[in-house]
Amino acid sequence: MSLSEFSIIDEFFKSNLLKGLAPEIGIGDDCAVLDIPNDKQLAVSTDTLVEGVHFLANSDPYLLGGKVLAVNLSDLAAMGAQPAWVSLAITLPVINKAWLAKFSKGFFELAKHHHVHLIGGDTTQGPLAITLTIMGLLPKGRRLTRSNAKVGDAIYVSGTIGNAGLGLQKAQQDKVSINDDDVRAYLNPQAKVELGQLLLPFATSCIDVSDGLSADLNHILKASGVGATISHDELPLSDSVREHRVRIGDDLWPYSTGDDYELCFTIPSDMSDNVERTLSDHRITKIGVIEQQAGLRIQLGNAERVTLNKGYEHFNEQ
Amino acid sequence: MSLSEFSIIDEFFKSNLLKGLAPEIGIGDDCAVLDIPNDKQLAVSTDTLVEGVHFLANSDPYLLGGKVLAVNLSDLAAMGAQPAWVSLAITLPVINKAWLAKFSKGFFELAKHHHVHLIGGDTTQGPLAITLTIMGLLPKGRRLTRSNAKVGDAIYVSGTIGNAGLGLQKAQQDKVSINDDDVRAYLNPQAKVELGQLLLPFATSCIDVSDGLSADLNHILKASGVGATISHDELPLSDSVREHRVRIGDDLWPYSTGDDYELCFTIPSDMSDNVERTLSDHRITKIGVIEQQAGLRIQLGNAERVTLNKGYEHFNEQ
Repeated sequence: MSLSEFSIIDEFFKSNLLKGLAPEIGIGDDCAVLDIPNDKQLAVSTDTLVEGVHFLANSDPYLLGGKVLAVNLSDLAAMGAQPAWVSLAITLPVINKAWLAKFSKGFFELAKHHHVHLIGGDTTQGPLAITLTIMGLLPKGRRLTRSNAKVGDAIYVSGTIGNAGLGLQKAQQDKVSINDDDVRAYLNPQAKVELGQLLLPFATSCIDVSDGLSADLNHILKASGVGATISHDELPLSDSVREHRVRIGDDLWPYSTGDDYELCFTIPSDMSDNVERTLSDHRITKIGVIEQQAGLRIQLGNAERVTLNKGYEHFNEQ
Repeated sequence: MSLSEFSIIDEFFKSNLLKGLAPEIGIGDDCAVLDIPNDKQLAVSTDTLVEGVHFLANSDPYLLGGKVLAVNLSDLAAMGAQPAWVSLAITLPVINKAWLAKFSKGFFELAKHHHVHLIGGDTTQGPLAITLTIMGLLPKGRRLTRSNAKVGDAIYVSGTIGNAGLGLQKAQQDKVSINDDDVRAYLNPQAKVELGQLLLPFATSCIDVSDGLSADLNHILKASGVGATISHDELPLSDSVREHRVRIGDDLWPYSTGDDYELCFTIPSDMSDNVERTLSDHRITKIGVIEQQAGLRIQLGNAERVTLNKGYEHFNEQ
């Protein structure tokens, strides 16, 4: 860690440490030192966001600071873990203090909201990219994996789907207003951290919707060795996404757009009523059922069925 | 994590998982899940290496794969921690399978040597940069910090100093041969992982020499609220570095070159003999003493003293 990094961390990041699961040693030594409670296990996830690939050039640094953390929190949510610690590696073309002040403000507002401690990181010079490694706690032996969905389980998704994809299109066309719900879904996603933890006793599998519903649900299906049918009419969509589907003439578009950071999960069918009651404060929608036959099928209203094998990268229709 | 990342991880990294402290859940779900033994604490460090900044453009990917891990292992060594897990975020301009095969070979050879498990990461598109977050284990309540050096402690450094800096100069002049000791010190540094753990019962402070001896020792002095005098004639130097000093007419040059990844540490003076006996398999050299008076002084052979306040970034002489 060079001296200049050291002063950057001091200036923008060190003063923001929170109480609670404070690291025994945090920023400023060769390593952070963390105490893991004896009844917990550690959940760890890493994500990189590169300018021009994962976020638009000249993105608002305040919103970006929140988004990079939200994207990583979403991985903890998908595992059912309680957020605890995060390391932040920023590569920046130049030391821009105004940019860093806004970025760290957005980052720390969300970190405080979820009681996440920044424990260290690195500041380097180069094209703008940000890598976070986030750490959370799980009750020992308990976690939401992708690999345990069972035939007959009900498939749920939280929130609505497609808004972030539509928001990205609006942002690319310079129709950027953070007051627009779709633009906000893209620039300021809300990781479903509380929902993930509430699902721990119920869900047989869970994933966050980052690459698109069909791609991500296919990960569950492949890891669990099962298939699924989704009832197309049940898909939770905003009016804006419904209108967009009509406008572009692609009714299946919402399955393949990413960045929603909702949770897709499965529940044994006999627990559905109980779960819906327990989670009545959260918007969750039953959209389909796990089946023996491999593959992801979409049951359209007109009795036609289509197969979505991969989603974002590859879009097959039978 | 996109589908293409998924297959990259499968192809180059997943098959190399090791036994031992295997993660309960490793690569392929939203998070890795790790079991921390009840008598241990977790040490965590993050480092980013950017092409053209931290390593030369067109670096040999096999050596680079080892170096990025060594640089991170060195942070664990400086804390006295036993390496356990690492996450790897690679940003690549294009998916180059030959490059990845060599990089992962270098990475996994060193990972196996130190029993480090790759637990996850991210593969993204963009200018070449690599961020690792490494995790190690410490006996509960025990660690080597920078902040506990005491007046009267002896100052030690492992190995020799300046070789990597000289190796970088040779590599920049295209005099690159991995058979040259200095070039090898730069391209293939050896993290002092075993030495760091052996120092846990003895050392009052420790840091790894990454930015240069004066800069790194100054971190210890500042964090501990003390000063130091180094006996210039005691500095452990190879013949090549001695000759380089003469050639460039700068006797103090070895204090300001980085990348050696040796350990600099302090020991209570009454334990010096015991420590030197215990660590007789490791090359360590007593180079100075901790003093009350702030600042880092170099005692030259001719009775002259100079002050090195910062080292790499700023080089003051009084």
